[in-house]
Amino acid sequence: MYAKENARAANLYCDPDANELCAVFAKTVGVDPDEVLPGNGSDELLNFAFMAFCGGDKPALFADITYGFYTVFAALNGIEQVRIPLADDFSLNVYDYIERPGTVFIANPNAPTGIALAPSEIEKIVAAKPDDVIVVDEAYVDFGAESCIPLIKEYDTLLVIQTFSKSRSMAGARLGFAVGDRALINDLKTLKYSTNPYNVNSYTQALGIGTLLDGDYTKNCCGDIIAVREFTVDALKKLGFELTDSKANFVFARHPGYSGAELYKKLAERKILVRHFGAERIKDYLRISIGSRAQMEKLTEALTDILAEETIAGGAE
Amino acid sequence: MYAKENARAANLYCDPDANELCAVFAKTVGVDPDEVLPGNGSDELLNFAFMAFCGGDKPALFADITYGFYTVFAALNGIEQVRIPLADDFSLNVYDYIERPGTVFIANPNAPTGIALAPSEIEKIVAAKPDDVIVVDEAYVDFGAESCIPLIKEYDTLLVIQTFSKSRSMAGARLGFAVGDRALINDLKTLKYSTNPYNVNSYTQALGIGTLLDGDYTKNCCGDIIAVREFTVDALKKLGFELTDSKANFVFARHPGYSGAELYKKLAERKILVRHFGAERIKDYLRISIGSRAQMEKLTEALTDILAEETIAGGAE
Repeated sequence: MYAKENARAANLYCDPDANELCAVFAKTVGVDPDEVLPGNGSDELLNFAFMAFCGGDKPALFADITYGFYTVFAALNGIEQVRIPLADDFSLNVYDYIERPGTVFIANPNAPTGIALAPSEIEKIVAAKPDDVIVVDEAYVDFGAESCIPLIKEYDTLLVIQTFSKSRSMAGARLGFAVGDRALINDLKTLKYSTNPYNVNSYTQALGIGTLLDGDYTKNCCGDIIAVREFTVDALKKLGFELTDSKANFVFARHPGYSGAELYKKLAERKILVRHFGAERIKDYLRISIGSRAQMEKLTEALTDILAEETIAGGAE
Repeated sequence: MYAKENARAANLYCDPDANELCAVFAKTVGVDPDEVLPGNGSDELLNFAFMAFCGGDKPALFADITYGFYTVFAALNGIEQVRIPLADDFSLNVYDYIERPGTVFIANPNAPTGIALAPSEIEKIVAAKPDDVIVVDEAYVDFGAESCIPLIKEYDTLLVIQTFSKSRSMAGARLGFAVGDRALINDLKTLKYSTNPYNVNSYTQALGIGTLLDGDYTKNCCGDIIAVREFTVDALKKLGFELTDSKANFVFARHPGYSGAELYKKLAERKILVRHFGAERIKDYLRISIGSRAQMEKLTEALTDILAEETIAGGAE
């Protein structure tokens, strides 16, 4: 409702500073308005962070398995990238980042594994590298992980980036936020005002405010997704799948008897689309987005059928 | 109405290719859909053009008096800029651009002078510099100038950029378009898909289509603005102002008896805001946006008062 009543007429320029939106978001996450910057989706802000905080003697450090866009941003901006392998169980060892110089990018929870680090673990990196910026990409944080935002008051090198595309159901409206010390935010503002001052349009500003004011709706949506995720995890385990401990709005699963490509294909034949990655270390996994309970029941029924078929075929040999 | 009925739900990602919008825009301007690329406002596309087509041995060439953002884009991207002085009457001599190597940026009509070049003049530059990209920024073209879009079929180095913020009354929704040969458009697409694939949100895509389908509305708005501009030009001339031949939705005027700063201040005291620039060559000018007929009458009445006051004050000395 807020958006409908408050979107400025489309013929007027939007507020380039998005002052009202910044005030409401800052209050929601417990920081000051000049410690936040909205972007046209979080990708825009992540790219700004690569531009602002990497280059020269600051390579970009990030995991070998993480959000696929980090390597694109680094390549586009001519930034050296150091991809640090996760452990065999896809956990991240903070000491790998402490011992290397450079700007750190951590998706927390990580994609596509869904595994989350505690803020106290990330704080170890921040505290140990006072001359490097640490960027924490919290796209999925609202589905069961803990935000690092409270730490920005203590550390002026910590930048947290959130998106409204997941827990706040605004993927089509494009809105993300960077949260950090004023000096970091001002660096990002320089890029915004040098490239596209009116980057967040009137509609998105109004919709963002409306979504923030109706915080219970977001909380309820996240609660529903978490409940359906737990249902899905249990159902897949009963079918013999192995899963990471996902704190995101997806699960990451493999079956010891099947390749990821095979399961992907058989699900696609049944018009169920999941995500499969070609990269060697994760090629046997599927990333399965959490939908409604009914959708996930359909998925587990389809997988039950697929596994049964295979058993029958195997028995007939 | 189209936008209301067709905006996708905000929780779904927008179409990153904006296929429907591209098809309707391409048809409107008489090119193919793969010869256009929408952006989050035309500033985003202009910045992409600086990134894609300048650098190395390609400096950016543009007028000393033109859209103020060109110098910002060049500086941000570390691009050498050559600012070529306009003639005393603010006209642009195409031979200044033909004889210098580099990527050309021409605002046509120019800002803040409003002066337009015929496409046949711009074509001289394009034809004479086959190895350089020529970018024509047509933000104000619909208010009485002629577009260079038809020339893109003949010249694969011509890029035309338009905005929906002026004649199409969508400043708050952020939409611009680049139009050019597929190879140029593909270069810009590489930047878009490497930085922010979902840059134009669902609402803006739907509103853009609606605006294009209701083309008569735009034409009527432009016709109204042109009529009020002509009224304003006549009224200001009667008051002793000198004006450029503006083909934009503003006029550019100076009075031989007053400095620009003085007139700006006296209008502001009467709560009429016009634009005044500090740059030496144009410091005696005001850029006055065309509003409604009633607003422009209020302006001319205020200027009549200001000039009369000054005469009385002068007489009393």
